[in-house]
Amino acid sequence: MSRAAIGVGLIGLGVIAGEAARLLTERGPQFSQELGRDLVLTRVKVLPVDLARPQAAQMAPGLLTTDDDEFFNTPGIDIIIEAIGGEHPAFEYLLRALQAGKHVVTSNKEVIAKRGAELAATALDRGVTLRYEASVGGGIPLISRFQHDFVANRVTGIQAIINGTTNYILTRMARDGIEFEEALRQAQALGYAEADPANDVEGYDARYKLAILGSLAFHTELRPEDIFCEGITRLGSRDFIYARELGFTIKLLAIARDLASAIEARVHPVLVPEDRLLAKVDGVYNAILVEGDQVGQILCYGEGAGARPTASAVIADVIAAAQEIATAGGARLVLPPTTDREVVPMDRVACRYYLRMTTADATGVMARITRVLADRDISILSVIQKSVDAGRGSAEIVIMTHAVAGAPMQRALADVTALEVVSEISNFIRVLE
Amino acid sequence: MSRAAIGVGLIGLGVIAGEAARLLTERGPQFSQELGRDLVLTRVKVLPVDLARPQAAQMAPGLLTTDDDEFFNTPGIDIIIEAIGGEHPAFEYLLRALQAGKHVVTSNKEVIAKRGAELAATALDRGVTLRYEASVGGGIPLISRFQHDFVANRVTGIQAIINGTTNYILTRMARDGIEFEEALRQAQALGYAEADPANDVEGYDARYKLAILGSLAFHTELRPEDIFCEGITRLGSRDFIYARELGFTIKLLAIARDLASAIEARVHPVLVPEDRLLAKVDGVYNAILVEGDQVGQILCYGEGAGARPTASAVIADVIAAAQEIATAGGARLVLPPTTDREVVPMDRVACRYYLRMTTADATGVMARITRVLADRDISILSVIQKSVDAGRGSAEIVIMTHAVAGAPMQRALADVTALEVVSEISNFIRVLE
Repeated sequence: MSRAAIGVGLIGLGVIAGEAARLLTERGPQFSQELGRDLVLTRVKVLPVDLARPQAAQMAPGLLTTDDDEFFNTPGIDIIIEAIGGEHPAFEYLLRALQAGKHVVTSNKEVIAKRGAELAATALDRGVTLRYEASVGGGIPLISRFQHDFVANRVTGIQAIINGTTNYILTRMARDGIEFEEALRQAQALGYAEADPANDVEGYDARYKLAILGSLAFHTELRPEDIFCEGITRLGSRDFIYARELGFTIKLLAIARDLASAIEARVHPVLVPEDRLLAKVDGVYNAILVEGDQVGQILCYGEGAGARPTASAVIADVIAAAQEIATAGGARLVLPPTTDREVVPMDRVACRYYLRMTTADATGVMARITRVLADRDISILSVIQKSVDAGRGSAEIVIMTHAVAGAPMQRALADVTALEVVSEISNFIRVLE
Repeated sequence: MSRAAIGVGLIGLGVIAGEAARLLTERGPQFSQELGRDLVLTRVKVLPVDLARPQAAQMAPGLLTTDDDEFFNTPGIDIIIEAIGGEHPAFEYLLRALQAGKHVVTSNKEVIAKRGAELAATALDRGVTLRYEASVGGGIPLISRFQHDFVANRVTGIQAIINGTTNYILTRMARDGIEFEEALRQAQALGYAEADPANDVEGYDARYKLAILGSLAFHTELRPEDIFCEGITRLGSRDFIYARELGFTIKLLAIARDLASAIEARVHPVLVPEDRLLAKVDGVYNAILVEGDQVGQILCYGEGAGARPTASAVIADVIAAAQEIATAGGARLVLPPTTDREVVPMDRVACRYYLRMTTADATGVMARITRVLADRDISILSVIQKSVDAGRGSAEIVIMTHAVAGAPMQRALADVTALEVVSEISNFIRVLE
């Protein structure tokens, strides 16, 4: 590359930071090619305790430093990632980075919820950017929805499942009829809940996230302490039984609405009608429903946490900042290089198939059909057989096959059609795996 | 504003173009404030036939022109929106705009699916941008997912319901047991299907969209003609009956997968297991499930067509192009102005409530509870009453109320608790409206 590399500094070496570092290193050559500039992990600020982590062992030794000044004074850092979490010292690090004229990327919901407005003002003042896509919803793109995709809208409301731990607990209570304490224990055993679960089960984590989303949606500074918050600890298994009887399930929702005169913002358990998509969001998954006056209702769903999805969002923000640096003064949309890829013909695409055929209503019909399929190495998953017209002696047979490529299936269909006991193949439809 | 305005030229005056023009005009002052530069609709290129449209009557007379050269030679146009659809003359207009150094925004799936690679190359060559978020999925943000949010991922697959007309028809067939022809007639009567429905029901529209999404996802030029395509016309009501019996519903899906050695890409009816989110996407709604090696599965759901959602995406692209122009050389994230908004206290937030209480198992209990609620103007939607412990004479009552504000509900709960026939209010949970 002819121009100077774009340097990335990383603060923290927990699971998210470690994954972000891995992505930057492993996919750096691809990113560099797309940017037209090298993108390089330049320095990593760690705590002494981090030096024992497995992530540290994978780093080039000179990369790590435990000294703040050494980190901030490293030449060539253009973008700083903060991934330590919590308000302090993250806030001080972020402020220092912005004041030093660095673009900043963070995955830290608490510091953005509490101090985002100050940080954004500093970024604006210094002519740099503050990005925090990873702070809400892991790899689900949410922040950029409000900053870009919905800019022509007045956002009227948000309904969100944005805490995977509580959604896992509530899903277990609804499905298995167990009590909160038992579901929590199981979530802890699986690593979905922490030893001290208060931050999740009392709704504080969801409240931080709603403060961030609501501030963006309504162009205001929605403070966590202004959001009503009630956790899930007092829900009982009987509530789930009655809720189902009434046609509902129970979810911890973060809700915000623009009432024109004011804003409504709250986090608490909610009975959700069973036919809503939000009611189908189970386990550790998250989903955010946004309503805008132009777009109507848009729902985004995905893994709301985890090192890989969260690091994916961190790196997307880093690339966006790097694009701005690389294209300053120009306006090139940075496109990945295009390669010519072969498209597989359907003959070679394997699917399960649903086959519906009209046959004679006689013994041995099924045996002859299955024999023909077996001859083409097509095995059968399930069969439905019904007499449809007893007078004319015709029956309908529906067969679901195991996966088979298009070519042998076409040959088998021809064989089956040729059987005298088969009047017609009424339909065949592929099945989603 | 001290600096020159950013001018927008618009080609076309159909429903999407008309809505985009309305948004630009009505919300122009807000956009201008956010950009720090005026954003102005400068010229509209129409056909003579457009002059009779209601949209034309709402335009300043000097804005409209039917002359290509007059349009392209209008001074001060920085961004051109193409919203006429089809391959020709849209392609020629887009090419001319890009060659003239204009940023370009289009909602035209056909021209992007067929000629996107040529247009993108021209844009890159001229140092301008080509944006087409509105070409797929209406207001659902999809294109920018691949260009920004998922850049750290290898995208492994796409499963999408991206044609609202066919999804409406299939939903009616599944729910009402009617045949394709009847469902199509109803879709036409409601304006969801055109008089000549082939483009939708034969899958061609979905194929264009999959060509666009697949090209972005897999960094290749996926041509519409390379995508296997089968429509929904041969599905019968009996197929829906059998599908349900087997635990499936039937959807027209656009599917693409990265097989490493090649790409799989196809549009056809698919049996979808009923527990998948895609199986719950009904009516004219669209949903796109993307799988990336870092983010896992991300699903986006919303209205996939319609003038307002589509124009929302067009204007978001225009603002993005305008941001690039406004911040060239700088890197300011354009943030909407922040205002201080009041957050309503929960006392004043109205919800329906679910109440569960333990009471004496005696006549007149329900009457006394409902009387107390009525005294607080709280009306009841439904009630479940069960004897839980016949020996001790206790019963459990669950009441669902109509919407009531927090303050009167708290007072009513105190009143109910004070009743001697009520042992305790075991739980109260708010209900999603």
